[in-house]
Amino acid sequence: VRSVEELLSSQVEVRAAVVSSPRDEDPRIATLVRRLSERDTLVQHVTVEEFASAAETDSPQGILAIGVVPEATLADLPVSDPLRILVLDAVQDPGNAGTMLRTAAALSVTATFSLPGTVDLWNAKVVRSGMGAHFHHPCLAGTWDELDAFRRERSLAIWAADAAGEPLGATTAPDRIGLILGNEGSGLSSQSRERADCFVALPIATTVESLNVAVAAGIFLYELHR
Amino acid sequence: VRSVEELLSSQVEVRAAVVSSPRDEDPRIATLVRRLSERDTLVQHVTVEEFASAAETDSPQGILAIGVVPEATLADLPVSDPLRILVLDAVQDPGNAGTMLRTAAALSVTATFSLPGTVDLWNAKVVRSGMGAHFHHPCLAGTWDELDAFRRERSLAIWAADAAGEPLGATTAPDRIGLILGNEGSGLSSQSRERADCFVALPIATTVESLNVAVAAGIFLYELHR
Repeated sequence: VRSVEELLSSQVEVRAAVVSSPRDEDPRIATLVRRLSERDTLVQHVTVEEFASAAETDSPQGILAIGVVPEATLADLPVSDPLRILVLDAVQDPGNAGTMLRTAAALSVTATFSLPGTVDLWNAKVVRSGMGAHFHHPCLAGTWDELDAFRRERSLAIWAADAAGEPLGATTAPDRIGLILGNEGSGLSSQSRERADCFVALPIATTVESLNVAVAAGIFLYELHR
Repeated sequence: VRSVEELLSSQVEVRAAVVSSPRDEDPRIATLVRRLSERDTLVQHVTVEEFASAAETDSPQGILAIGVVPEATLADLPVSDPLRILVLDAVQDPGNAGTMLRTAAALSVTATFSLPGTVDLWNAKVVRSGMGAHFHHPCLAGTWDELDAFRRERSLAIWAADAAGEPLGATTAPDRIGLILGNEGSGLSSQSRERADCFVALPIATTVESLNVAVAAGIFLYELHR
């Protein structure tokens, strides 16, 4: 429900919506159906079973919408200072990726860019975890070549999160940073390591191997935002 | 696998382990079975189907262990400065709770204390998300009365995370803080609100309603740890 509300408040094009019939008297869903109808968007009412087969979640909330994934690339981003790009290098858990997008939107990060091997940022689970962030925050996917070109053109410093890096705060943050977070299990890829201008770490207790990647991203982005 | 490794490196009593037979040649699992046998702990080998019926996860890794939940209360905690207690007030998602424990352990928080309405911190999903934190970090559950008594005895300041609170950093942190994080949907309970000495917030963009509770906890605890 929340995601569809956020979707309708955004610039993203909505093609259609599907509503589970017993839920269409829920006031928030009824409001959404009215807003969709005012925009002449197709709303299809279906049975609980039909809805369950489409919803991809164990406890669907009774409405789903079909939108058009915005076509955007790094090159479309406006020139700005400070510039902060959150770069996902093979982050695979949809909940982590969605939470990272939510955090990036909340902490005024310019865009999130996913490299090959990362979960599809527009996968339904990622969108649900994003809690609407997808509709207000540029969520991009692309190649290393695109990142390299953008980096040269905008003089972007590449900071890569790694437990063996320098403690965050030891280096003054430049205006334009692409912060790379690696895979949940294996960390940074060799491509990230080759491109990093600087490796940064969050000092943690020796009894713990690492922080969850979405928590680490949250701390880094908060510190870089201050 | 990782959780069982961490369990065997801790003081927690292990009663038995169950191994999925086709996996007992995996080197990490074979090592665990050897360590368990050396301690005279019962190891039961079972079929894949039997293992699946016990494992409570879609992709079990082939070993599970049965341990004794440590009996500990707030009153058992050593007197120390700084004292940092992470208090969960009806946090319900097991992944969030486990991630918060992992973060608390990583950032040298003294203990995590769960109030009524919070997911059982020793639920298997929470333990998996905790990535071993349960075995090195005091994970306690109790009542408001216990928290009140501990607070009086140890002169603990109660800080409650709330979007309408003062920006973090505006108030100097005392040596002894109990930081309360509320429910994912409804936030702080009235009991928390009544007890708070101070409400604290993380400044975020107005387009985003809130941060994920585990990310917010991570940022608060990192800032209080610095």
